Amino acid sequence: MSTLGLIAGGGELPRAVAEAARAAGREVFVVPLTGSISENWVTDFPHEFHSPGEPGRIIKALKAAGAGEVLLAGKVDRPKFSEMKLDAKGMLLLPKAMAAAKKGDDALLRFIVGICEDEGLKAVSVAEAAPALVAGEGALGRITPGADHAADIRQAFKVVHTLGALDVGQAAVVCEGLTLSVEAAEGTDAMLARIGTLRESLRGTPARKRGVLVKALKPTQDAKTDMPVVGVQTVRNAAAVFLAGIAVEAGAALILDKAAVAAEADRLGLFVTGTRP
Amino acid sequence: MSTLGLIAGGGELPRAVAEAARAAGREVFVVPLTGSISENWVTDFPHEFHSPGEPGRIIKALKAAGAGEVLLAGKVDRPKFSEMKLDAKGMLLLPKAMAAAKKGDDALLRFIVGICEDEGLKAVSVAEAAPALVAGEGALGRITPGADHAADIRQAFKVVHTLGALDVGQAAVVCEGLTLSVEAAEGTDAMLARIGTLRESLRGTPARKRGVLVKALKPTQDAKTDMPVVGVQTVRNAAAVFLAGIAVEAGAALILDKAAVAAEADRLGLFVTGTRP
Repeated sequence: MSTLGLIAGGGELPRAVAEAARAAGREVFVVPLTGSISENWVTDFPHEFHSPGEPGRIIKALKAAGAGEVLLAGKVDRPKFSEMKLDAKGMLLLPKAMAAAKKGDDALLRFIVGICEDEGLKAVSVAEAAPALVAGEGALGRITPGADHAADIRQAFKVVHTLGALDVGQAAVVCEGLTLSVEAAEGTDAMLARIGTLRESLRGTPARKRGVLVKALKPTQDAKTDMPVVGVQTVRNAAAVFLAGIAVEAGAALILDKAAVAAEADRLGLFVTGTRP
Repeated sequence: MSTLGLIAGGGELPRAVAEAARAAGREVFVVPLTGSISENWVTDFPHEFHSPGEPGRIIKALKAAGAGEVLLAGKVDRPKFSEMKLDAKGMLLLPKAMAAAKKGDDALLRFIVGICEDEGLKAVSVAEAAPALVAGEGALGRITPGADHAADIRQAFKVVHTLGALDVGQAAVVCEGLTLSVEAAEGTDAMLARIGTLRESLRGTPARKRGVLVKALKPTQDAKTDMPVVGVQTVRNAAAVFLAGIAVEAGAALILDKAAVAAEADRLGLFVTGTRP
């Protein structure tokens, strides 16, 4: 198998991908995107920093490393084009990139991956590069959703899919039929945190956990660039606002460290489950 | 014209309705709902407190006051049925009320209004009871939306209508194509406040106001129970996170004090406009 070229933004995902691919015996070459990544795990891998405005240099580095497949993973800030470092190819493609950025973050990510594909690199999904991270069907820990949670899970999937079609967000919390919180630009952590500000009659309490977090792929996204991610911190954040559990679509979401997520879910008393909606 | 029976929840709306109706020369009788209202303006009007679990007593009080028309206005907390004060009619109707409450707040409000209609009271909308509060077409103050805001206004209406169809919320903020914030159970004030937590590249700044708040009726709602409301505080909250303006649907939203809202919008440098989407 050729070297995996990993264009890495911020957050835990790119590291998990790199480590899972290496654990499966594969060479990994990382291009951390300047401005989007602050983690220092990349020093464990051969790597070369570039700005998102340097597609020419990114592709050259990936090819020099023998990468036949490329994957973009992690959070990429919508760049300030006026401050971005540009190479010749970047200048040439800038008008198209700015047009893509105006259509939303997804369009920009698809654009960056598209440039690599035009240069003969094969774009792969996280599921292909690191299948160990993909959510399976059923509960991860010992706690399983009850019959009373099924309706909330269905409703939350409906909200997230509907919003996703408008490129708004990937996550929502529903509690006994009422949509408590919906993600837009603030991200899942902030979206979860505000559940705690709602009055107690609407949400769970330490004595009685209620409500379900659902994270799902936007219908406008393909699995290559932005599968939803659940990690240990997601479990802690959901527990902190007394949710009953977390549901994702089996086969279409990533669990960053399944053993650790299962253990933390058991310890904190909530379910983490993969469903087929 | 018969006396207006006003079943009043919390917030500024019921008072504005009562005062506008009285200013138009009409008698007003108020039933403040215990548990949902803390304001003391009701002492300016003939009134009688009741719980939402006492439809029999509410209807009796309204009829005794000579009310031929009834309007439910203001925020009503989803009641804790186990703690609610119930009259005979309330006990009889409780199973239906609980089923309605499970379908969302709107279903519960429609249910309460429906009980009054069954008893021969005519349900009227705020637009009928206090037409002076309904948003007209065009800008209220001196500042008008620019051509660059039109696309954001359209997108925000699309997000709100889509969410509204799922009974999620009434408001969203869009800034140059990106949906920044979407309202669920937290309400418009909290939804607006978190714009300020987003990174500066996504939102407006003191030097450059950006982004538009749209509030719109849910497609599942009828105008009788829950038109979206903009008041002076909405203008202040939007200005505090550096939005360029606020848009509502002309004829389908309420402006609580048009002169004060226009003056505050002019002072803070943003537009408040009614559009025909």
